[in-house]
Amino acid sequence: MKKIHIIGLGLLGGSFGLAAAKKFPDILISGSDADEKNLQDAINLGIIQEAKDAPDADTDIVILATPADTLNDLLLKTLDQVGENTLVFDVGSTKAKLCALVAEHPKRKQYLAAHPIAGTEYSGPKAAFGDLLDRKVMIICELEQTDLGLKEKAYELFDALNLKLRFMDPEEHDRHLAFVSHLSHISSFMLGKTVLQKMEDEKNIFDMAGSGFASTVRLAKSSPAMWAPILTENKDNILTALDGYISNLSAFREKIAASDGSGLSDEMTEVNKIRDILDLEK
Amino acid sequence: MKKIHIIGLGLLGGSFGLAAAKKFPDILISGSDADEKNLQDAINLGIIQEAKDAPDADTDIVILATPADTLNDLLLKTLDQVGENTLVFDVGSTKAKLCALVAEHPKRKQYLAAHPIAGTEYSGPKAAFGDLLDRKVMIICELEQTDLGLKEKAYELFDALNLKLRFMDPEEHDRHLAFVSHLSHISSFMLGKTVLQKMEDEKNIFDMAGSGFASTVRLAKSSPAMWAPILTENKDNILTALDGYISNLSAFREKIAASDGSGLSDEMTEVNKIRDILDLEK
Repeated sequence: MKKIHIIGLGLLGGSFGLAAAKKFPDILISGSDADEKNLQDAINLGIIQEAKDAPDADTDIVILATPADTLNDLLLKTLDQVGENTLVFDVGSTKAKLCALVAEHPKRKQYLAAHPIAGTEYSGPKAAFGDLLDRKVMIICELEQTDLGLKEKAYELFDALNLKLRFMDPEEHDRHLAFVSHLSHISSFMLGKTVLQKMEDEKNIFDMAGSGFASTVRLAKSSPAMWAPILTENKDNILTALDGYISNLSAFREKIAASDGSGLSDEMTEVNKIRDILDLEK
Repeated sequence: MKKIHIIGLGLLGGSFGLAAAKKFPDILISGSDADEKNLQDAINLGIIQEAKDAPDADTDIVILATPADTLNDLLLKTLDQVGENTLVFDVGSTKAKLCALVAEHPKRKQYLAAHPIAGTEYSGPKAAFGDLLDRKVMIICELEQTDLGLKEKAYELFDALNLKLRFMDPEEHDRHLAFVSHLSHISSFMLGKTVLQKMEDEKNIFDMAGSGFASTVRLAKSSPAMWAPILTENKDNILTALDGYISNLSAFREKIAASDGSGLSDEMTEVNKIRDILDLEK
């Protein structure tokens, strides 16, 4: 592992850079960002050593870490640029469209569809930190489509970063993520909105907000530049998840309206099952 | 401060006991719980020193910490039992009905309506810990209705526990809490339900759940025995909050369905204001 090039130097791209620099002290990391300020920050923070518009021909790995709606064009352009011993992987939150886009591409074998389940509500190079990826799940799609030798390069990096690999097909990935990630962000943003609307009348509402509110509304701090594209790229799956959520909320509302205490209690007891599942997994 | 009696020895009642015992080493703390196992746990954990069905006549403070739907009867019964130098306060999440109930009560001056903004998703005596209340906000309603001398006893306890007092009328309290606490619990329970329904088909979904999902769904671990009564006791305010939430979700859904990326981005940018507010308050 001698050269990595990172396109998009925000929270995820930046954290890959910091972690790789720590694990491979002799590595040369270059990169680019559409935002000049981000690029300068990334150099100052040691995320990359060199700003470069395109990867060198002998680059081992190119990481694409830009918003979901830019990845289609970027992936095609990058595959055109790279030498034959370069692996390209993206870290986007949706995988089906990207995999379909390059299914017949002559350089398909140089691409790996990846998605690390890691993030915070903050964004940009200054939000990046070397431990963000440590022991996180990394989902890989269509592994069999990637060249064996190039996969070895990816494993070398992923193992060094302590990523836990999981494998699934891209449609399955997008369906799942709509439920366990994208829906959480929508519920949080709309909760924030509902309380902010209320606050226009009543000023001290946040004085009374406890840790429960802070926890449920945390994701409403997330970057719209990152999230708007995810919501539209994974539209169909997200609408299914969101419709289920709204329908559950409406049915629960009726139980409250009917003062159906035992119905509410039964329903919440059923959902309490999530205790076991979360405590097991985390 | 010589004697405290706590009725309901769960997360909140138990934490009051542990904190008071630490701050007032010579204090005698008695208490009761409808659940025999909880009562025994509370003694074993040092939350109370003595199980007692009713407070002694010379008890300084009685704390009512049972589920919201039991507080009405319990408050009336307790006011009948206590001596004239005893202050009674409850720690329930709804305040308007309780205050109305005792508005004309001959012992109204011996009651203080209180609500500490403190909790976790766990319940029962074993979930209690002495620092739960440390530096948390304690909302007091209708302060002017409580006897001056008895208020001094309450201040002595609240100051020792580092509670930060806030004052408001009970209707305002209930309206606010519907938005910043009760709605968060509903959104979290229904998120958990929506994902659990999905999981019936697809087993590995929780493998892919990151910290964002864990954060938004954390409150779905909460106790139904505590929450069902809150939802029905504060029904009108909660329906207002929940209707606003469902309406915001539905409008957001339409923007996703229309692939309105810039509309979604604008709306999320607006909600990002919550960053400043939360970072300021916490």
